[in-house]
Formats: sequence, structure tokens, C-alpha cells
Amino acid sequence: MDIITSLREGNRLALSKVLTHVENNTPTGQQALEMLFPSTGSAYLIGITGAPGTGKSTLVNSLALSLRRQANIPKVAIIAVDPSSPYTGGALLGDRVRMRDLSGDTGIFIRSMASRGALGGLAHTTTAMSQVLDAAGYDIILIETVGAGQSEVEIAGLAHTVIVVEAPGLGDEIQAIKAGILEIADILVVNKSDKPGAENSRRALQAMLEMARGGGYNPPARKHLFQVTEPAAVVEVTDESEWTPPIICTIATENQGMDELLEAIKNHQKYLKKSTLWERRDKENLALELEGLIRDALSEKWSTEMPKEVIERTLDEIYQRKIAPHTAVKHLLAYNKART
Amino acid sequence: MDIITSLREGNRLALSKVLTHVENNTPTGQQALEMLFPSTGSAYLIGITGAPGTGKSTLVNSLALSLRRQANIPKVAIIAVDPSSPYTGGALLGDRVRMRDLSGDTGIFIRSMASRGALGGLAHTTTAMSQVLDAAGYDIILIETVGAGQSEVEIAGLAHTVIVVEAPGLGDEIQAIKAGILEIADILVVNKSDKPGAENSRRALQAMLEMARGGGYNPPARKHLFQVTEPAAVVEVTDESEWTPPIICTIATENQGMDELLEAIKNHQKYLKKSTLWERRDKENLALELEGLIRDALSEKWSTEMPKEVIERTLDEIYQRKIAPHTAVKHLLAYNKART
Repeated sequence: MDIITSLREGNRLALSKVLTHVENNTPTGQQALEMLFPSTGSAYLIGITGAPGTGKSTLVNSLALSLRRQANIPKVAIIAVDPSSPYTGGALLGDRVRMRDLSGDTGIFIRSMASRGALGGLAHTTTAMSQVLDAAGYDIILIETVGAGQSEVEIAGLAHTVIVVEAPGLGDEIQAIKAGILEIADILVVNKSDKPGAENSRRALQAMLEMARGGGYNPPARKHLFQVTEPAAVVEVTDESEWTPPIICTIATENQGMDELLEAIKNHQKYLKKSTLWERRDKENLALELEGLIRDALSEKWSTEMPKEVIERTLDEIYQRKIAPHTAVKHLLAYNKART
Repeated sequence: MDIITSLREGNRLALSKVLTHVENNTPTGQQALEMLFPSTGSAYLIGITGAPGTGKSTLVNSLALSLRRQANIPKVAIIAVDPSSPYTGGALLGDRVRMRDLSGDTGIFIRSMASRGALGGLAHTTTAMSQVLDAAGYDIILIETVGAGQSEVEIAGLAHTVIVVEAPGLGDEIQAIKAGILEIADILVVNKSDKPGAENSRRALQAMLEMARGGGYNPPARKHLFQVTEPAAVVEVTDESEWTPPIICTIATENQGMDELLEAIKNHQKYLKKSTLWERRDKENLALELEGLIRDALSEKWSTEMPKEVIERTLDEIYQRKIAPHTAVKHLLAYNKART
């Protein structure tokens, strides 16, 4: 109870501490999540992703400032998912550089997340951290993912609105498609649009969008342990196909194009609320979260109950190619059954 | 039995079919893996990763040709992990472009892998496919991952030797660190080294390596369900710290620098065999594979046994913020226990 009050009252130190507990998945963190969860569900999550070198971080900073000053959003949070490096022992650059730009604005809270050690669990941690910020009363949460890999796509997919950032002169016009991120874009940004080749980038994106529209919208298939049951699936796809991602040209370093970007975000938010998509994305995320937690709990329970010697013996047999992993799993599960 | 003989005899059609089954994780695929597993463990896996625009695919092609012609390797396979796009319905470019370059050489087998739908399971699928190629007698398997995300790092980490490719003029000298891929590099390549800025890229990498050496080697921490037990851990870290990643400058489009790259690969292979690293990477991969299979089996078993209504009711309560996901998991697992 006390912690919720602290968070709501804007105690940034308390917020930081809770986030650290949640990031490290400590018992305190889990308890905090349980307590805070009823207060979640009102934040608007915006994912920003794109290849390295597109000026994403600068864009996120500029967007956060615009949301505060032009759009009068009371509280904006940034979660920067930054793979850490062994050379720095933590997120590189990150907070320090940002702090300088955004310092003095108590309506903005920034958190860098190290992706190290969270293999396979990045999306889960991001969800949990955005729930804390949501409960703490942040109206908009910007989730920035560095890179263009599969995990980044997954993380960005957690957001209500996904912004994919491109920039001219990165050598490869088809980066976004190659990385499979264009398909999750709700808004496309060509940043560094004063650089040569910007118009080409814009046109290439335009052409791809038109190609996509010809083929019809094809929502990415997710593998679920359990499906989000919604009979209105047909209606929703129709809803979704009505949205055509706008292409916004920006120069983030000079805050140019921010008005257009704000406008596009506002439009998409309206569209989400009008269709069933807002609700659907929320439900999907919660189902995914539950699924991940159950998978973790089941395997933890299993490995606690299973004698270490049996696991080690099995691993040895696998190393020696005496038994295939698939066969080993059958044996191990049967062993478990025989025991209980 | 028949299938193994076919694969060993070099039946490429049979190989393709088995790989498709394995990629789609069909019962046939699982059965094939079980049968083939005893014949695995001899292939040398080389991971090649880096940001988009570095000319990675061209480098992989050139390397495959060099391995065949200069190093006289009888059978070389390429697994290209390419995020698919909804616009093409499959891997973009990929096979067709490669086929043209490498056609006519029956000692080279190429397979593109769509990453779509395999969320969270990419590393697993790559392992399985490399096991098939290993059993089919491929001496060297090149695993190319596009992008610089967390999954890509994970996949590249499956290899015995990891090559990280950079290129000048991609806007950001610290791409590799930002993406956290430098830490997994055994060999660094500056491709397109005839482009302006190549020398800068090389020097930046050199400086980072020296920084890293000063700080000591810091092997990435992996979260395991069960640990690979090896008392010789201290010795191994010492072994590993002896290896300094060489920086090779190449122009893959003109096959330049390939001799140096082959030499570096040969050296690293020697080093791996001399130290315990070869064995350790093999063991780690198999432990990870077993872990993934167990997690899948446990959650599949659970969701089969659990009444659908209970899951749906729980999801509804979560959507309505009546119950937190962490609490829901406790209820669900307790429910399961009460039932059996």
C-alpha cells in the first residue's frame, strides 16, 4: 500500500527501486507487481524501433519533449532496451546522455534496461516494467528498442502503437523488410531527412506499403500456449486493414517533423480506441505474460523436484550421443511420473 | 535407417525434405532428429553475424567458395536465418541470389530459414537444422544471422567460432558494442574495406579490443535451467582469455582478404581443440536444447491437462485487473495439483 502511494505521489527514488526489483525479478519485485497490477491498464504504450544508426534515441528524446510541451501530457516515461556491453558493464551511453537533454523536466522519467542475462525474457521484463510505470501514473510510455532483431520486434509488438524509424544512407533500402519489422509498423519515420537519399527512402517505403496493401494485411502469427479467444476476429482484421501507416519525415536533432509525428500518433490512438485493437493488444500481452510465467513456474517446479543426478546423467548420455535430446525428454518426463 | 543412408550419400532432395520437417517441427522431423542424433557431433559450426548493410551474405558466399577451393573442405553448408516478410511470404532474396553464385558446386548446400512464427524458438530450430546437416556429413556449417538483435546474438553463440562483420560508413562506429555483439566475436571482419572510413572502423575495433583486454575477459552469463557441470571452469576462462580476436579486412565482392580469413578460422579451430572450449560449447548447446525441449513438453502437457474454461476464466479476470498474472499462476498451479 505504502509503495503505491509513494509511486503515485511521484517519488522517483521509490519508482527506481521498484523497477530494479522488477528487472531483477526478485521476490519484492514480484510482490510489487501483484500489488500494482490492479492500477494498470491506462497507460498508452508506444514502441519505437529500427536499425542502429537511424537516430532513434534522439527521436525518442525529441518525441518525449514534444509530448510534454506540445501535447501537454503530464507524465511521460521512456524505457530504453539497450543491449549491454561487457566493456562498460552496463548500458552504454544511455541514461547519461539523455539526462542532459531532458533534465529539469520532472514529468519525464527515463529508464535504461540492460538486455544482458535476460535472454528470452526481454519482452517479459519490458512488460513488467511498463506495468510499474503504468501504475505509477505515467500516461505515455515510450519503449525504445535498439537493433532490428527478432526480440526487438517482439518487444515493439507489446506496444499499442509501433513506430519504425528508418534513415537514408544506411546502405540498404530494404533494411526494414529484411529485418521483418515493417510488418509491425503503425507509423513510419524517415529520420535524418535532410541527408541525401531521404526522398529515396521515403519513396521505397511508400512503394512497399502499396505492395503490402495490394496483398492485404497479413497479421503476424504468434505461437501461443493458449489463444486469446475472440469471436470478432474477422471484424478486427477488417478494422486493422483500414489503417495505412503514414510516413513522417523528421530531423530529430532539430525537433523537425515532431508536430506531424504527434498528429500521426494521435490519429493512431483514436483509431485503436475506435476499433477493438486497443483491447486486443492489451489482452494479447496479458495472455503472453501469463504464458511466460506459467512456463517459468512449470520448469522451475520440475527442476526442483527432479534429482540433480538424473539430469546430469542424462546430459552425459546426450554428450556421448548415446541418447537424442528428444528421447531424453520422454525418459525424463516418464521418470518424473513414475516417481510421483 | 534409409533416410540416414540417403543423407550420407548426398541426396539433396532427401536432405531438403528432412530440413523442412525439422523446421516445422513435425512428428517426422522429430523422429528424424532422434535417428540422426548419434551421427552428429563432428561438424564445425561457424556463426557469421553483424548489422544490416555490412555485406554479410556476400562474405558468407565468398567464404563458402574459399573453404571449398582453397581449404579443400569436401562439404560446406550454409544456414541463412532471414526474417521473412509478409510482402514476399518467405525469405527475401536469399536462396535465389546465392544459388547463382554457388551453383554448380555440389559440395555446397544452402538453406534459408524464415524466422517468422518461430518467435523464441529460432535458436532451437537452428540447432536442430545444423544437427541434420552435421549428420548428413557436412564438415563445416556456416550460420548467417541477419541483424544485430538479441536472438541473433543467441544464434551466433551456438557456433564454435563466431565472426562479427562490420563495414565502414554505416553511420555509427559503435554499432557492434551497442548491439552487444562484439563480446561474442572470435574473429572480427571489416568488410567493404576499400570504402572510405575502413581504416577508422578497423582502428575503432582495435581500440575496443584493447579496452576489453584491459578489463579482462567477461564471458556472457546465460540463464540455465540446469548448469553444465564442469569443475575445470577456472582453467577454461584462462584458456579463453588467451585468444585475441584478429581483425581481418575484406572486400567480399572481390574475394579479397579470404586467405587471411581462412587462416584466422583455422587458428581459432586449433585453439578451440587445444583448450576445452570446443567441448564446452558443444555441451552448452546440448544442455540448452534439452532445456528448451523440456520447457516445451512441460507446458504442452500442462495446457492439455488443464480445462480450457479455467484458463479462459483466469484470463478474463486478468483483463479486468481483478487478479495479477503472478497470482493467477499460483492459482492455476494449485488447481492442477488439487485435481491430480
